[in-house]
Amino acid sequence: MTIADRWLLPDGMDEVLPPQASRMEELRRALLDLYHRWGYDQVMPPPVEFLDSLLTGTGTDLDLQTFKLTDQMTGRLMGVSADVTPQVARMDAHSLRRQGPVRLCYCTNVLRAKADQHQGGRSPVQVGVELFGHAGLEADLEILRLALASLETAGATEIHLALGHIGIYRSLVQAAGLDADQERALFDALALKSPGELASRVEDSVRDPGLAAMFRALGDLHGGLEVLEAAREAFEEAPQPVGAALDQLRALVDGVLAEYPEVEPYFDLAELRGYQYHTGMMFAAYVPRYGQALAKGGRYDDTGRAFGRARPATGFSMDLKLLATLAPAEPEPDGIWAPAEGEGLAEALQALRQRGERVVQALPGQRTGPAEHRCDRRLERIDGRWEPRLLETSQDRA
Amino acid sequence: MTIADRWLLPDGMDEVLPPQASRMEELRRALLDLYHRWGYDQVMPPPVEFLDSLLTGTGTDLDLQTFKLTDQMTGRLMGVSADVTPQVARMDAHSLRRQGPVRLCYCTNVLRAKADQHQGGRSPVQVGVELFGHAGLEADLEILRLALASLETAGATEIHLALGHIGIYRSLVQAAGLDADQERALFDALALKSPGELASRVEDSVRDPGLAAMFRALGDLHGGLEVLEAAREAFEEAPQPVGAALDQLRALVDGVLAEYPEVEPYFDLAELRGYQYHTGMMFAAYVPRYGQALAKGGRYDDTGRAFGRARPATGFSMDLKLLATLAPAEPEPDGIWAPAEGEGLAEALQALRQRGERVVQALPGQRTGPAEHRCDRRLERIDGRWEPRLLETSQDRA
Repeated sequence: MTIADRWLLPDGMDEVLPPQASRMEELRRALLDLYHRWGYDQVMPPPVEFLDSLLTGTGTDLDLQTFKLTDQMTGRLMGVSADVTPQVARMDAHSLRRQGPVRLCYCTNVLRAKADQHQGGRSPVQVGVELFGHAGLEADLEILRLALASLETAGATEIHLALGHIGIYRSLVQAAGLDADQERALFDALALKSPGELASRVEDSVRDPGLAAMFRALGDLHGGLEVLEAAREAFEEAPQPVGAALDQLRALVDGVLAEYPEVEPYFDLAELRGYQYHTGMMFAAYVPRYGQALAKGGRYDDTGRAFGRARPATGFSMDLKLLATLAPAEPEPDGIWAPAEGEGLAEALQALRQRGERVVQALPGQRTGPAEHRCDRRLERIDGRWEPRLLETSQDRA
Repeated sequence: MTIADRWLLPDGMDEVLPPQASRMEELRRALLDLYHRWGYDQVMPPPVEFLDSLLTGTGTDLDLQTFKLTDQMTGRLMGVSADVTPQVARMDAHSLRRQGPVRLCYCTNVLRAKADQHQGGRSPVQVGVELFGHAGLEADLEILRLALASLETAGATEIHLALGHIGIYRSLVQAAGLDADQERALFDALALKSPGELASRVEDSVRDPGLAAMFRALGDLHGGLEVLEAAREAFEEAPQPVGAALDQLRALVDGVLAEYPEVEPYFDLAELRGYQYHTGMMFAAYVPRYGQALAKGGRYDDTGRAFGRARPATGFSMDLKLLATLAPAEPEPDGIWAPAEGEGLAEALQALRQRGERVVQALPGQRTGPAEHRCDRRLERIDGRWEPRLLETSQDRA
């Protein structure tokens, strides 16, 4: 193996160097502090669990994305966490077992076996919140507002908020009495966003002409606030849960716009992301120049059933690595350059550092100077006392 | 699979619940802030690398501890990081390529395939620092002082500092002209700490009577400061690097005691941990009631050679999970309990949270109250303004 080979990192497994790592740390703190102020308690899920537990419940979609490991101690198959949400659901259902609403937040590395073109790298740092134990709109609205507050904290502007509701499609499927194959075919046609394909699948499987029209309409119902009005009309004869879902979306978008009037809402009623586990509203937040969503979330009730305790749940997550690129990392020189030795120097350094100053001490024979170490001051002994003096000339800094 | 099975976590792969997770987050911040004040820049190594890179150079000892994964994108074998140190050495040698001393710090999850009885779990959070590019004693002393400052930050008292120097044994082996098998036998005898076994191995392989006596003495040279004096005598005729190593240990312990007079120094000149990569002083810090070291470090020069750039290096690392158990996590109620709705409530909550207050809003129909959510105040509308009022009776809090 050549030296050059040893430098190579696997695709999507990135290292983070200074100053970007500090920027990520800063944002991690700002977000966890935000969640703390909203009453969310931090948890740290295990990086590895038995595969059976990881892919249960809300985790069923994650099989292909999960790296598998054999546990040398038991011979059982384990998986590296690819998504923290099912793990936090397990913690709520089993480890915490609290009564009433439970608010949890986390920030941790996850690994993905495959790089998804829409998801960036294979080693995201997942940060997010989950609210368990409340099925009402108020919980969904809190999650939406907290997602927007998170993006603002990260420096996002011109936020586009895409909203959908899995209950619309699910109710129509139920009313049409589709079997699994028919449902799969319709699902694929909607995912393809091809009106011709959709019309043909609807003709194949939906006998009721009213429901057939509604399925066809679903493919066109994406756009701004006007979509909600169009949907009202298209789904006038739909089963009751469809109207209730539209009411929810209206109330959510009104709640969001009351606090964030500058956010651009977008609706896609045929959005079926996470169909296996979503049970209510779903959202994704975008900003210009980013091809992928910066925050994704929604309601996924009944999670925890696999762990013996079904609970309503709603939440969102983001990739801290991606989020940290919204605002540039541009550290200014802020350190004090100290000499290698001197009388009373150790005490002076300790005092400065206790005051929060960044002090870089030269090592004997060192050739680099304050400029290379982001220092704007130099510690000098003046009248028997160690004092930081501003470096004014470029010669000073060398 | 039963529900109970799904709850099980693999041995040593632990979840961290509130309030312990917050305690760990708090300590993470305090340590990274400490390193920042000493001029150490944060880096985030990739959680996974190609196995060839991970097990190169300082990583050669890590094979058995490293979980292996097949990269689905290239078919190559990858490893999950079991120790950050070799990764940071690669970052210094290749990614940063800076001139002069480079100070780096990190805090990240690692995974170990086997639980070592001395190391606790298999999913530690490794936190530490590395100082590259300076071969002098001043760098080693800085690392020792920073390790002690880290333990103090975590709340450690009664610290025992065990010091050793790999150069002593290595120089004796070289002088005795041992072959690989003989060296391995001696190494094992020293590791066993069995004087009989050691004497017998020395007799087998060391012909020079002076050197044989020195090897035998090595097994007894552990204890307090007096060990350095005893070693002086025992190694009077030893090759020059042995004396130099003793001088270094003396200077290091003097430097440490000048700043931390309460630390208990301990020497073990037969300590051979990390023999494959250590090149100079080695240390481990212990506190009472902990069977394992809380911080471990030492000098490992020439790291980076495998990546094309040999550099002096010294550093240490700790397990944040273990360290966070030194001080108890005992959060006091500090939140404000807010009602589900009310006039002007949204603005009041925003203002309170912007001031840094923790505000937990009740959700409609919620049965748990302020006490369950660590709130000591309740938000009430008084004369048209929202004011937090202290909860004084236990009835108040329910």
